[in-house]
Amino acid sequence: MAALRLLLAGFGNVGRRFVELLAERDAHPGLAGFDVAIVALTTGGHGAWADPAGLAPARILDQYRVHGRFPQALDTLEAARSLDYDVLVELSPLSIAGRGEPAISFVRAALGRGRHVVSANKGPVAWAERELSALARSNGARFLFEATVMDGAPVFNLRRHCLRGNTITGIEGILNSTTNVVLGAMEQGLGLAAAVARAQALGIAEADPRADLEGWDAAVKLTALANVLMDAGLTPEAVARQGIEALTPEDLAAARAQGRRIKLVCEAVRDGGAVRASVRVRHLELDHPFARVEGAGSVLRIHTDILGRLILAEDGPDLSTTAYGVIADLFALLPDAM
Amino acid sequence: MAALRLLLAGFGNVGRRFVELLAERDAHPGLAGFDVAIVALTTGGHGAWADPAGLAPARILDQYRVHGRFPQALDTLEAARSLDYDVLVELSPLSIAGRGEPAISFVRAALGRGRHVVSANKGPVAWAERELSALARSNGARFLFEATVMDGAPVFNLRRHCLRGNTITGIEGILNSTTNVVLGAMEQGLGLAAAVARAQALGIAEADPRADLEGWDAAVKLTALANVLMDAGLTPEAVARQGIEALTPEDLAAARAQGRRIKLVCEAVRDGGAVRASVRVRHLELDHPFARVEGAGSVLRIHTDILGRLILAEDGPDLSTTAYGVIADLFALLPDAM
Repeated sequence: MAALRLLLAGFGNVGRRFVELLAERDAHPGLAGFDVAIVALTTGGHGAWADPAGLAPARILDQYRVHGRFPQALDTLEAARSLDYDVLVELSPLSIAGRGEPAISFVRAALGRGRHVVSANKGPVAWAERELSALARSNGARFLFEATVMDGAPVFNLRRHCLRGNTITGIEGILNSTTNVVLGAMEQGLGLAAAVARAQALGIAEADPRADLEGWDAAVKLTALANVLMDAGLTPEAVARQGIEALTPEDLAAARAQGRRIKLVCEAVRDGGAVRASVRVRHLELDHPFARVEGAGSVLRIHTDILGRLILAEDGPDLSTTAYGVIADLFALLPDAM
Repeated sequence: MAALRLLLAGFGNVGRRFVELLAERDAHPGLAGFDVAIVALTTGGHGAWADPAGLAPARILDQYRVHGRFPQALDTLEAARSLDYDVLVELSPLSIAGRGEPAISFVRAALGRGRHVVSANKGPVAWAERELSALARSNGARFLFEATVMDGAPVFNLRRHCLRGNTITGIEGILNSTTNVVLGAMEQGLGLAAAVARAQALGIAEADPRADLEGWDAAVKLTALANVLMDAGLTPEAVARQGIEALTPEDLAAARAQGRRIKLVCEAVRDGGAVRASVRVRHLELDHPFARVEGAGSVLRIHTDILGRLILAEDGPDLSTTAYGVIADLFALLPDAM
C-alpha cells in the first residue's frame, strides 16, 4: 500500500489537475518518490467513490469524463469521520457566507482523529487556523495549506524553512487573480461587466464574481497570510476592504495618463501589538514592483527585520501551479521522500 | 557553552555585520534561540584572535574599532585544522585567479575533520561543490552556503525545502549588484569610469572592479546556482561570458529610446543531458520582469516542470541581507532552534 492514503474532498479544477498530475507521474522525474494513493473521493453534487485498495488516477479521470459523476453516495463529513485514510485533501469551494464552513467541520473531523489535513481551501485557514493548528498538534497530526495563497508558490513553506530568525514586520501583495485580469481588460477600454465576462471566458472568474470584485477573496487570503506569517489573529471581517466594483475604464485611462496603474493591493502592517490589514485600490507608479504584475500573476513583498525586503512572484501560473501546492504539502508528510 | 562554537575566517564587511547582529541580538526577537559563540577569528592581514571560552561580539567590535586588527597571529588553514570548533564560517574574499583557493582548502580542512562549514565565499561552491558536499556527507558534516548568491535571499533553502517534486529546467537572473549599479549610473549619462567610481563611493564596487565588469562574478554565482539547482557540473570557465566593459552611455541611451533597458543577465538552460550557461548583455523590454531591477537589487526566475515559473527578488538589500544568509545556515545547524 502507498505511504499516504488520501481522501479527496472536492473535484473541481484543482482536484482534477491534481489527479491528472498523478496520472502523468512518469513524465515528472521529481515525482518518483511521491508515494500516494487515493482511497476515496467525495464531491458536493457529483457523487463519491471509495475503494480501500486505491482508485487509479486514470480510472478516476475516465469515470468523470464519461459519466460526469462518481458512482457512490457518500457525504464528505461522514467520509472524514468514518473512512480509513492518512490525509484529508480538502479541495471543496470557499464559502464566505459560511465563514469557512462546512470545510472547517471536515478539517476538524479529520484532525480530531489524528489524520493530517492538506487544504487548498482558504476558508479554514482564514477563519479557524489557530483552533485547527492547535487541534492538529494535540492529535499528532499536521494542518498544511500551501495551495491557499498565491496558488502553489511557496509562501508558508518559505516562512517555515527559509526565514528563520527574522521577524516579519509587514506584508504587501497582489493576491487576487480575477481582479488583476479584470483591471487589465478595463485598461484596454472594456467596462466592468465586459471585463468580467472576458475573465469568465478565460476560466479565471467564477460564475458569481462578487467575492473577487468586492475584495473578499483578497481579504481572506491576506488574513491567512497575516495570521500565519505575523501571528495577527485576524478574521477576514477585520480587514479594511475595498473592491473594484466602482471603477470605470475612464479611471484606469486617467491613471495611465499620469504614468500609473490601478491595482488591488493587500497590506498588513504591525501597529504596536496589533496588525492592521487592508485591501485597497491603489494607483501605483510604473516603477513600483507590483505595477507590472499581469494577468493571473501574483506577487508578495515580505518585510523583515534582518533579511530586509524579499519579493516572491508567480509568473503565468496555471492549474498545475495550484495543484503543486497540494503536492508540496504531501511531500512534507511523506517519510523521507527525498 | 553555546550550542555552536564558530571559527570565523575573514572579517570584511559581511563578517563585521554578522558580529554586529550578534551584538544587537536583543533587538531581534527571532534571534532568541540563536545560540552561537565565536571561539576564534582569523583574517588575511589583520591578525587573529582565539579564545576557547568565546569572544564576546562587542569585544571583537571594540578591538577592531580601536586597533584596526586583532592581537594574535594564526593562519586560517592552521586554525581550521587544529582549533576546536563546530562550524567554520568562511568569509574570506573570492579569488577568481586562484579558482576558489585558498578558501577551498580551508573548507576541505574543516569538513575533513567532521566540522560543518557555512560559506559566504562562492569560490568553493563554484569550483568544488561536488567534492566538498561529498566530503561533508562522508564525515557526517554539512556544507551550507546560502549567502553566496543573491546575498542572504533564500535560494538554496528554497530549492531544498520549497520545490520538492519539481525538476528545475532553467534559471535566469540578475545576480551581480555592481554591474547593475554601474549600468544605472550610465543610463544617467556617466561614462564607465565615472559610473564605476560612483559604485565604489557607494561601497558596492570593489577597488579592483574587473571581476564584476567582465562578468566573472556573475559567472561564478551562476555556476553555483546551476550546479546546486540543476546538477549541472559546471565550472565558471564553462559559462559563455560577456561583460559590460565595452558599453557606452550612448548604448544605454539608444536602448532607452527604443523602450528598452540594458541589463547583465545570467541564464542556465537544460539542453539534452547538459546545461548551457551564459552571462550576457541583454536589451530588455520595459515590461520584462528584470527590467525594473534597480541598484543593488537582484532577481532570479526559476523554471520548473510542475509549479511553473517562480520569481524571487531582493528589494534594496544591504549588508544585513548577506549576513542573514550566514545566520540562516547556522539556524539549520542548531538543534531545534525553533
